[in-house]
Amino acid sequence: MMARTSARKAPGKRVAVLGAGSWGTTFAKILADGGADVVIWARRPELAREIQEAKRNSDYLAGVNLPLGLRATSRLDLALAGAEQVYVSVPSQALRENLKVAGPHIHAEAIVVSLMKGVEKATGMRMSEVISETLRLDESQIAVISGPNLALEIAKEQPTAAVVSSTSLEAAQSVASVARNRYFHSFVNTDVIGTEFGGVLKNLIAVAIGIVDGAGYGENTKASIITRGLVEMTDFAVAYGAHPETLSGLAGLGDLIATSQSPLSRNNTAGRLLGQGYHLSDVVNQMQQTTEGLASVAPILELARAKGVEMPIVEQVRQVLAGTLDPKDIAPHLTTDDEPQGERTMDGQAQGGSAVRRALKRAFDQLRNSGRSAPGDRP
Amino acid sequence: MMARTSARKAPGKRVAVLGAGSWGTTFAKILADGGADVVIWARRPELAREIQEAKRNSDYLAGVNLPLGLRATSRLDLALAGAEQVYVSVPSQALRENLKVAGPHIHAEAIVVSLMKGVEKATGMRMSEVISETLRLDESQIAVISGPNLALEIAKEQPTAAVVSSTSLEAAQSVASVARNRYFHSFVNTDVIGTEFGGVLKNLIAVAIGIVDGAGYGENTKASIITRGLVEMTDFAVAYGAHPETLSGLAGLGDLIATSQSPLSRNNTAGRLLGQGYHLSDVVNQMQQTTEGLASVAPILELARAKGVEMPIVEQVRQVLAGTLDPKDIAPHLTTDDEPQGERTMDGQAQGGSAVRRALKRAFDQLRNSGRSAPGDRP
Repeated sequence: MMARTSARKAPGKRVAVLGAGSWGTTFAKILADGGADVVIWARRPELAREIQEAKRNSDYLAGVNLPLGLRATSRLDLALAGAEQVYVSVPSQALRENLKVAGPHIHAEAIVVSLMKGVEKATGMRMSEVISETLRLDESQIAVISGPNLALEIAKEQPTAAVVSSTSLEAAQSVASVARNRYFHSFVNTDVIGTEFGGVLKNLIAVAIGIVDGAGYGENTKASIITRGLVEMTDFAVAYGAHPETLSGLAGLGDLIATSQSPLSRNNTAGRLLGQGYHLSDVVNQMQQTTEGLASVAPILELARAKGVEMPIVEQVRQVLAGTLDPKDIAPHLTTDDEPQGERTMDGQAQGGSAVRRALKRAFDQLRNSGRSAPGDRP
Repeated sequence: MMARTSARKAPGKRVAVLGAGSWGTTFAKILADGGADVVIWARRPELAREIQEAKRNSDYLAGVNLPLGLRATSRLDLALAGAEQVYVSVPSQALRENLKVAGPHIHAEAIVVSLMKGVEKATGMRMSEVISETLRLDESQIAVISGPNLALEIAKEQPTAAVVSSTSLEAAQSVASVARNRYFHSFVNTDVIGTEFGGVLKNLIAVAIGIVDGAGYGENTKASIITRGLVEMTDFAVAYGAHPETLSGLAGLGDLIATSQSPLSRNNTAGRLLGQGYHLSDVVNQMQQTTEGLASVAPILELARAKGVEMPIVEQVRQVLAGTLDPKDIAPHLTTDDEPQGERTMDGQAQGGSAVRRALKRAFDQLRNSGRSAPGDRP
C-alpha cells in the first residue's frame, strides 16, 4: 500500500515535538528545516531554555546548530496549544505516563506521531498501541516514523530516507508532507505493524552484531547474522500481521544495517561490551541512555513464543545477557539454521515445520534461501 | 530448492584448486582443513614452490599458515590428475583461456566449481556458462560457490557461511560435503543464476557504497543504498531467471553487506577513491588486483537494457566512472526512487510500469516497501 507523498509543502503548519533527547531534538530540526512552525517540549526547564535561547542542545546534540525558528518550552500546554501534529520521542517505558499528562492538551483533531522504537515491557504493546489506548484516538490519527535514521548523521544534514506509516494513507501523507526537507526524504506505507516491529526487532539483531564484534569476529560473520536476522525479524512481524516487504525495506533491513554498522548505536555498543566479556550489570551502568535492544529481549521472546515463532539469534542474545552463553560461542551458532522448513532433506523427503510455520511458509518463501545446515553441523 | 547437505565427510577426496590468488589459496585451505586431499595450481613456479615447501603465500595471504597437507604445483596436468572436483579461481576475464589449457587434463566425470564472481566482458556470460561452453560439460557437473566470504577473514578461520549452487542438487551436495569444515558452513541451492548474479551485482552496489563513503556520507545513506541496491539486484537477476529469494540470502544480501562494509574489499576501496575525487584512471592504476565491480558496470547495464530493467544506482556509478556525475551528488539521488511501480499516486490513480516491470511485479512485491518519493522530490 505505497503511494507517492505530496510534493507540496505545508509551510508554517504548527507542530509539537515531545521530548528533547537526541532523536526528538533532531526531528524538531528536520521539521523546522522543512518549513513547519515547531515547538519542542523538554522536561527540564534549563534544557528548554538552552534550545529556545542558544539554539543548542549540548547534552544530546553537542556542536549542532538548531534552526533559528525552533521554539522550546518546558510547559506541555504551551508546546501543544494549536499543534496539528504531535511528534512523540520519550523513553518507550515512560510513554504511557507522559501521554496521561499531555493528553488533555492535545487537540482533538491532531495527528499523534510516534518517533519511538520499543515495546512497553508491562503489556508487550507497540508504541502506537499505547498511544491509541491512552489517548483513545482513532487509528487515522496515529502515525509512526522509522527507517535508517541515526540522529547525529541527520543532525549533520546527511541525506536520509525514512518511512511514515499509518493505517490511514491520508494521515501518513499529511505527516510526510511536513516531515521532509532537502536532506530528509519521507516515504509512506500503511503497514504500521511491520514498520514498528522493524524498529524494535532490529535493535535485538544489532545487539547480536555488537556481541560478535566485541568477540573479535569480522564482516563475514556479521553479514551472515544480518541476513539470518532479517529472516527472524520477518518471521516474527508477519506472525503479528505485518507485510513481509516492509521488513525488507527501509524500516526493516535499512534500519538494521544502519544500526548494526554504526559505532553511534547504543544497542551495538552494548553488544560490543558484552562480547568483550563485561557483565550485563556493568554494561547497563556504562550506558547513559536507555538501550532499547536490551530491554526488548524478554518481551519480544515472550511474544514470539505466544505465536510459536522461533528466533534463534535473539534467544542466544538472551543467553549471553543471562550469562549462560559465552559470547565467543554465539557466532558459529548463528551461521547455522537447523529449523525444519518444509524443505527437502538429504534423502529427498519433505520435512514439515510447525503448523504456524507451514501457514506462514508461503509468505516467507522469498526470504528463504541459502539452504539448511546439516544435522549436527555444529563446530 | 534448498536441502540439508551431507553431514558425512568424504575424507581424502582428491580435489584441485586452479589459481593461487587470495581466494583460491584460502579455498584450498578450507578444503584441506575439511579433510580433502588438495593440490593447488599456481601459474608461477616460485609461488607454487612457496606454498608447497613453506606452506605460505606471502604475496596474497601474508602471515597465514597453510595446512601441512596442502600440495602445490605449477603444472596443470599434475594438479588435475585424479581430481574428482576442480575448483576454479582465476581472473574472470582469463577463465576461457585458462580452461582451454586445463580442459584436456580434467577428468571426464569431475565436477567443476566456479569460485569466481564476474561476467565475461566480451560475451556477457556468467562464469558457469563459460565453463559449460568451454569444457562442454553437462550442467550436473558444474557448481558455483558464493556468499559473504572475505578471504582474509576465512583464512583466519572466522566462522563463515557460503552457498554451493548447482542445477543438480546431488552435485551441490557432493561439493558441499567436501567444501566445509569447523569454520566454514556450506549451504546448497539449485539457483545457479541467482547465486552467480548475486556475486556479480553486489560488487556494483559496493562501488556505490564506496563512492558515498569517500564523499563523506554516513551509515544512514549507506543503509539506504544497500536496501535500494538489493531491489536493483533482485530486479536484474529475476529478469534473467533467478529466484528472488536467492538474492535475499547469503549469496545476495549477505555478500552485499560483507563487501560493502569491508575495508578489505577492492570494490569498496575503488569506490572510496572515486568518491574522494580521484579519476578512474588513477584508481585503476592504484589497485594492484582486478576490481571486478568496475569491469562489470558496462556489461551489466547492457544486459539490464536488453531486458528493460532499470538500475538507477548502477547507472549513477557509471556516470561517476565516466566523470559526468559529481560523487557528492550520488547519495541524494540514490535515496529517492521515482520509478513507476503500479502503486497508487497521490490522486489515487493506478500508475503502470513497463511491461517487464508489470510481469515481474508479483515476484518483487516482497522486496518493495518504503513507498515512492514525490514527483520532483530532488534535493
